[in-house]
Order: sequence, then C-alpha cells, then structure tokens
Amino acid sequence: DLPLVLIAGPCVLESRAHALEVSAALKEMSVKLGIGLIYKTSFDKANRTSANAERGLGLKEALPIFAEIRETTGMPVLTDVHLPEQCAMAAEAVDVLQIPAFLCRQTDLLVAAAETGRVVNVKKGQFLAPWDMANVVAKLDAAGNGNVMLTERGASFGYNTLVTDYRGLPVMARTGCPIVFDATHSVQQPGGLGGRSGGQREFVPVLARAAAAVGVAAIFAETHPDPDKAPSDGPNMVPLKALPAMVEDWMAFDALAKARRLVV
Amino acid sequence: DLPLVLIAGPCVLESRAHALEVSAALKEMSVKLGIGLIYKTSFDKANRTSANAERGLGLKEALPIFAEIRETTGMPVLTDVHLPEQCAMAAEAVDVLQIPAFLCRQTDLLVAAAETGRVVNVKKGQFLAPWDMANVVAKLDAAGNGNVMLTERGASFGYNTLVTDYRGLPVMARTGCPIVFDATHSVQQPGGLGGRSGGQREFVPVLARAAAAVGVAAIFAETHPDPDKAPSDGPNMVPLKALPAMVEDWMAFDALAKARRLVV
Amino acid sequence: DLPLVLIAGPCVLESRAHALEVSAALKEMSVKLGIGLIYKTSFDKANRTSANAERGLGLKEALPIFAEIRETTGMPVLTDVHLPEQCAMAAEAVDVLQIPAFLCRQTDLLVAAAETGRVVNVKKGQFLAPWDMANVVAKLDAAGNGNVMLTERGASFGYNTLVTDYRGLPVMARTGCPIVFDATHSVQQPGGLGGRSGGQREFVPVLARAAAAVGVAAIFAETHPDPDKAPSDGPNMVPLKALPAMVEDWMAFDALAKARRLVV
Amino acid sequence: DLPLVLIAGPCVLESRAHALEVSAALKEMSVKLGIGLIYKTSFDKANRTSANAERGLGLKEALPIFAEIRETTGMPVLTDVHLPEQCAMAAEAVDVLQIPAFLCRQTDLLVAAAETGRVVNVKKGQFLAPWDMANVVAKLDAAGNGNVMLTERGASFGYNTLVTDYRGLPVMARTGCPIVFDATHSVQQPGGLGGRSGGQREFVPVLARAAAAVGVAAIFAETHPDPDKAPSDGPNMVPLKALPAMVEDWMAFDALAKARRLVV
Repeated sequence: DLPLVLIAGPCVLESRAHALEVSAALKEMSVKLGIGLIYKTSFDKANRTSANAERGLGLKEALPIFAEIRETTGMPVLTDVHLPEQCAMAAEAVDVLQIPAFLCRQTDLLVAAAETGRVVNVKKGQFLAPWDMANVVAKLDAAGNGNVMLTERGASFGYNTLVTDYRGLPVMARTGCPIVFDATHSVQQPGGLGGRSGGQREFVPVLARAAAAVGVAAIFAETHPDPDKAPSDGPNMVPLKALPAMVEDWMAFDALAKARRLVV
Repeated sequence: DLPLVLIAGPCVLESRAHALEVSAALKEMSVKLGIGLIYKTSFDKANRTSANAERGLGLKEALPIFAEIRETTGMPVLTDVHLPEQCAMAAEAVDVLQIPAFLCRQTDLLVAAAETGRVVNVKKGQFLAPWDMANVVAKLDAAGNGNVMLTERGASFGYNTLVTDYRGLPVMARTGCPIVFDATHSVQQPGGLGGRSGGQREFVPVLARAAAAVGVAAIFAETHPDPDKAPSDGPNMVPLKALPAMVEDWMAFDALAKARRLVV
Repeated sequence: DLPLVLIAGPCVLESRAHALEVSAALKEMSVKLGIGLIYKTSFDKANRTSANAERGLGLKEALPIFAEIRETTGMPVLTDVHLPEQCAMAAEAVDVLQIPAFLCRQTDLLVAAAETGRVVNVKKGQFLAPWDMANVVAKLDAAGNGNVMLTERGASFGYNTLVTDYRGLPVMARTGCPIVFDATHSVQQPGGLGGRSGGQREFVPVLARAAAAVGVAAIFAETHPDPDKAPSDGPNMVPLKALPAMVEDWMAFDALAKARRLVV
Repeated sequence: DLPLVLIAGPCVLESRAHALEVSAALKEMSVKLGIGLIYKTSFDKANRTSANAERGLGLKEALPIFAEIRETTGMPVLTDVHLPEQCAMAAEAVDVLQIPAFLCRQTDLLVAAAETGRVVNVKKGQFLAPWDMANVVAKLDAAGNGNVMLTERGASFGYNTLVTDYRGLPVMARTGCPIVFDATHSVQQPGGLGGRSGGQREFVPVLARAAAAVGVAAIFAETHPDPDKAPSDGPNMVPLKALPAMVEDWMAFDALAKARRLVV
C-alpha cells in the first residue's frame, strides 16, 4: 500500500522545448506536493480518428528527448508502443512501456514488451470485462515479465461514450498488479466530434477522486499548458495550472483510502 | 453541505416484530456513530421478478407499524409507493415517499406523491440519463413540491447488469436536489438468477465509498440480520452486523469530501 | 404461422374526428393490402418526459370513441393501460390491453389486465433481457390468462439511445407467445431532445423489415397524417401516406420468412 | 446491387490438407448454389484470449497454400493482417486484406494495406459507432485505395456480450463501400468462457438473415467440418454440412431485398 503515484504529461511529444518545459514544471510540482511522478509522453499517435491528424515526432527523434527528460528531471518516463519492433528500441530510453487499449490483446506486442524487462502498463480495452485482464497478465507472465500494471480507462457504453465501472478496480487488483486509473481517457467521447474525439474535462476531478477513494496505485492524467491548442486529447486534458489542486485532492483521498483498506 | 445521512432498513416489512427489532438496532447504531438515519421499509414489493415471490404486508397493515417505528425510535421513515392512491395514505405515517426507478416517469404517481407535501425521493430509472431527471424534478415542482431527493441506483449495461456512472451524481445535483446513492440496488443483477434477481453484496462498500468521496447527501443501504434468508434483495443486502464498519468508512470519506467540495 | 398482422394508429387519441379519420384510412389500407389490422390508440400518455406535454382525452371520454371505431371499421382496438383500475373499464371497449414497457413488471397491473380475459400485449422493458420476459408470462398465466403477446421495443444502449437485439425475437418466442415488433419505439431516442424524446423515423423501414425476415406475428407502427405536428412521438411516427409501401414491403418479407421458418 | 457474395472458410489455416479439403467443399457448394465465394482463412490468430491458444501456421508457410487454394478452386482468398509489414507479403497471394476490428484505427496498418492495391475489408471495432467508420474509409482513401469493404461484427453491450445494430448497415453504406455482415463474430461472447471466447452458433441464421433482408453485399460466415474441435471460434462457427441450407436462405432474402431496395 504505497502512496499514490501520478502519471502525467502532455498527450503527445510536440517538441524538445515543449517536453523540457512541461517536464520541468511537473517535476517542480511533484517535489512541492511530495508525490512520485512518472512522465507520460507519446512519440506517435498511431490510431487517431482521422488520417490528417498530427501524429508526433516518431520514435527515433523522440528517444534522445526521452533520455534528456530522464536525466534533467530524474523522473521515470512512460511511453506507449504500437508495434512489436518498437519495444526494444523504446525500452532503451524509457522506464515503462504502455500498451494502448485497442492493442491489449495483441499477443506479439505484449510479448515484445514483456521481453524488454521494463515495466509494462496495459490499458484495459474498452471492449473487455475487468476479469478478462487476467488473461492479459498471464500472457505477459508467460513471456517472463511479472512487472505489470493495469489501467482502467472506461468501457464502451452505447456510441461515442464511455463509462467507468469502479467494480473493475478491485476485480483487476485480484491479479496482484498495481492498478492505474486513467482520468483523461475515461472522460473521452470517442469520435464524439465527428472527425475527432471529444471529452469532458470537467469530470476528471470527479472520476479520479472516486478512484483514489476506492484505492489505486496511480492516477494517470494528461496535462498541457494550453489544452485547447493541443494537437490531441485537448478536450479531456487538464490545464497544467489546474493540476496541482487536483493532485492534492487525490492525495488526500488516497491517504484516507490506504489508511482504511478495502478488501474485496 | 450537511453531513451524510444514512437511509437503511430491510428491503421489505416482514413483520411488526422484525421491524421493531431491526429499527431498534439501527437506532442504536445511528446514536453510536452520530449519523442521521432514515428508516427504509417497503409495505409491498410490487414488481418482483416472479409472481410467486413474497410481496410484504400491504399498506393497511403496515401503517400502524410505520407509526410505531417513528414513535419508538424517533427516526423518520421512508417507504416506496407504486400507485397514486397509496400516496395520501402512506403520507400519514411516513416522512419520505419514494418513487421506484421503473415508475420515475409516471406522471400521476409523481403528482400524487408531490401533493402530500412529504419529501419525495425519486430513483433514477435504469433506462434514463442523469440529465433526464431534471424533467422529473420539474414535474414535481409543477405539482407544488420542491422537497425532492434524487437517487442513483445504476444504469442498464447489457443484460442482467447495471453500472454506476459517477458523472451522474454532479449532473443530478445541478437540479439543486439532495442526491442519494443507493448502494444496494446499484449492485443488483436484475433477473440474474433466472426467476429472481442476483446481486454482488461484496461491491457495496466499494461503490458507496466512491459515492461518498464524490459527495452525496445520503447513502441508501438495505440491511438484514440474515440477508441470505431475506424474502427479497438478499444477494445485495448487507448483514446488519457488517453495516456499522461500512458506515464509519462512508462517514470518513464524507467528511473529507465535504471539507474539499467538488464543484462541477 | 399465420400471416403478418399490423398494429397501427396514431400515438394518442387526439379527438373523435381525428380517430375516425385515421381509422377509416387504415381500414381502407388493410383491405387494399389484405392484411389484418389492429387499431392502436392511447387515451392517456402517462409517462411523458415533461409535465407540460399533452396527455390525451382520458379513459372515460375515450371509451365511446373506441367503441365507435370498432363498430365503424370492424377492426379490433388496442390501448395501453397504466393503472390496475383502468383494466376492467378499458376491457369493455377494446380487444387488446397493452402493458407499457416501464410497467412490464408491475404485478398488480399485469394481474388486473389478465383478469379481464382480454388479450394482453406486454412490451419488454428497455431494462430487461429477452429471457426475463418468461417471468412476465408466468405472472399472467398464474392470473389465468394465456392470451399474451410480447413486444420488442428496444433495449437501453448507453444514454438516450436504444438498440434492437434480434436474438430477442426467437428467445421471447420460446414462451409460445406471438411476438410483436414495435418499429416506432425501437427508433425512439428517449429524452434525446432535452424536454422530450427524439426519434429516427428513417430507420422504421429498416428495423421492421429485419423483424419480418426473422419472423414475427405482428409489426407495430404508429402513424399520423402529419407526424411533425403530432402531440407525441412525432419524430418516430411514420406519415400515413408513407405507410402502405412499407407494409407491402413487410408483407413480402413475412411471406418469405413464413415459407422458410427459422427454428432457434 | 449485385447478388450476395459469401465469405466463408475455417477461422484459421490448420494445415494444407485441411485447407484444400474445406476449400474444395466450399467451391462445390458455391457452384451448386450459384453464389460467388471468397475463401477466408487466417495465417495467425494474433489476439487470442490466452497465450496458450493455438495461433496458426504463420505467414510464410501459409502463402503457398493460399496460392494453391486460389489456383485449385479459382476462388479469391481473403486473410487478415495484423502488422504493417505483413501487408505487402500477404498481398502477393490473396485478393482481400482484412483489418481486424481491434485494429481498425491503426493508421500504419490501414496505410500499408491500402498501398498494396488489394481490396481492403475493415471490420468495425466493437467500440466504434457506425458513422465513425467514415473516418477509416477516409484514411484508406488518402492512402490511394478506394477498394474498401466495411464489415459489421457487433458492438460492445455490457460485458462479454455483443449486439448487432442493424441501423449500422445503411449508415456505413453511406460511405459508398460494400457492406459485409460477419455472422460468426456477431454471435461471439468475447471472453465469455473465462480463458477463451464463447459463442452462440444458433443465432447465426437469425442475424445473417436479418442482414440479408436489410441489404448487404456479402455475408461472412466461418465454417468447419467439426467446429467443436476447431482450434478457435468453435462455439460460433457453423458446421460445414449445415452451411448450404443457410446460404440458400440468405440468397432468398437477398434476392427479395435487392428487388425492393431500401434507401435510408
């Protein structure tokens, strides 16, 4: 029952300058609040709604920037991988490989990620029941990697809408893996704006607080200095300035939750 | 931002003796924990899955017992009504009239309940969006009653399953009504056992705690000295002995939530 | 495997003149197309989204008009009932008592309808699985009435949306009851327009044809000379002029379906 | 409005002998019934529920067998691809590249498939609304390939369950692409058997007939000489012997549907 960790960063790596600015600001916040922070950033948005949408710098250009963030800030870095061949390369510069929700059952990707020995964070597919994630953990285990985190990010609920089922948190915790609550994608409205996804940023504090109260190892929250100008996930990212008050709130509920542990 | 209230009691009024025993135990608990308590009990289970299922004592036999509970314990009493003509009669002996979820859009029932002047607690239909409840509140308002509470008890999610959408709590709170979280029926599995409904009692503490953290006026939790022998809702009722520890937990999260109010 | 029957009429009984005009037009259509027709009309819209919405003439005023429609056209009449005490009275003037979807588990209403000896048509609740309707049939059976029809009208699918699960048709048919497909309410968007429900009239021909192909006893389609001016269900009613071509289409698919019976 | 095409074959390429036997039987059936047939087979099951599940022969071993099936039977061959680098290789030996539902938004895979110039069949993700597939078609179009088919295979409906929304067929048809109905995966119960997926084979004739009635370009139905012994999708595959009667049924409904075209 370690204290809550925060996984935060902008949705996508926009540029070296942007990444260094945001990561420095997050480092400062993490020190001030006394919370462990993993810096999240994507080198590629491989499944955008539209082909015209921006995708990111690509893995090769991103690797030295990932390394620089780690060195400058001392924070671990998490990035998502989309193809088996990206895993080994990404693993050189990051601490956590994240498997996107749509890809959470792609055996080759899971195995390649597992074989790097890095921590693997798998997002539960919007189409999966919480108990189905035990099969995903078993795949990673069979590939020799037991350092697995599982992330809740909403389940399909009709069209263009997700719902968070909090029963899923203790159900997934039965695997023994640390559980992450992704507050950013849980409030996404997939395809909700026609050619791109919408989001309900105003519910990030609500859903994340509920997750902290139920008890999670980490909260994942994407953030940006100016979300409405961000190339992706703007409607559901939290403004950088608004984040510290939220994190304090989550830490307060986390402390209470871990003092009064729920066993289900 | 008043402190959390508990609405508790056995699902159905089984007998005078049973009701007096359970209400006395709940009264004692409420004093010990320092929480306001509304005693919940049903004189009729009007929509059981099966026609053979027990239904309760009926309104006429129940009224004097309701009155006796009020007198003996000093606690307000809540009961659910199913037909317009029951409202005035029930209002003589209870403090809160509850509208069942399936009936939350039946105009005549809402109007009859409103006209008693009693507090009306409407359960959100499993088939309704949270924002649709504003229309229900407007119906009651038009009938001259502004003392309305709204209760979240889960939304249909595929077959024989409900899911709780915590965005619904602040959405319904925009009506200005106190919001209740029904921890018992939110873990119901409607029709899940073929001829009767199933339930997942083990998730009551999880979902209720999340609701307390988000911020609610009251938590509704049915309880029974021996739920597995109860005539209805046994699989989702909490044993009377297990309730005090849960309530203490909810009070702790309520206190924190009300000290750090979320505005959405 | 009798040929397809049509249940049609305007959503609500607007006036004697309106009812006689529409029922005469439908009678003419039924003769021309050679299809049996049951005239559907409501004396009360008891669960409108908003309290300000029109409700209909009421049972007392409606009864002589129901009788007149029966006499003038020779067609059987169907109406929906909302309270137990309406059943016996309505049964004097109509052939089929319909139980609304929200009320499909209200035991007293089911029993009162059953006891009239009239055919009872129960709409499956949006919150029920198809197999759960066997319990409803058993309730009616226990009350001594085996003349039961079951109607599919969509299941809750996220918020403000319904989906039709065609597996439900053969599943409900296992009860031995004739199955009706309600093409009007299956394309409803409950609460979809804020203070009232929306609808997708354009999908009526699609969903009804699929139902005819799978095999049903009857199709239910509300119709109106000018749906956009109708007091309720306008967005999902079919214009009276457009109905004959649709019915011909459904009859063609029905004939093929009944020549090639599916057994599931 | 060309006549219905059948896409059929066993879920996975088990061996050369097995493939030649099944494809010969299907060829014979297609000639006897007068229906165009595309032979479906997978060289790899890349997203099995469990890591222990069998996966198939792999692309290299499969390619000469694909070529042999084409030559022996004259039938076009369809296979699914999971990674961008498989597309060009698979395109040498098959006529249609299929994009699995989980991967329907992976831009690199879509582009690589498009660039082969082969027909691309994209399965709609269980997590997508039908109108969201227009964005997928635009991605393929931008990559220079307009030969696109879209396949309906069910939408997430609660846990471990899918539902087919027939409104999706005309909605997807607005893209101008031929629409395929996948009768096999629409009756899948994802993860429904714990370590593997379940299925409801008995509903294949129901759902496929409804699709033919609404109007589709092709029906996709996996088949196997002995489904209960098949390495994957056994519970939802149709026995080879039972297929011809079903196909005749679908052809009858297709002929009627295309004689009476629905425009939505």
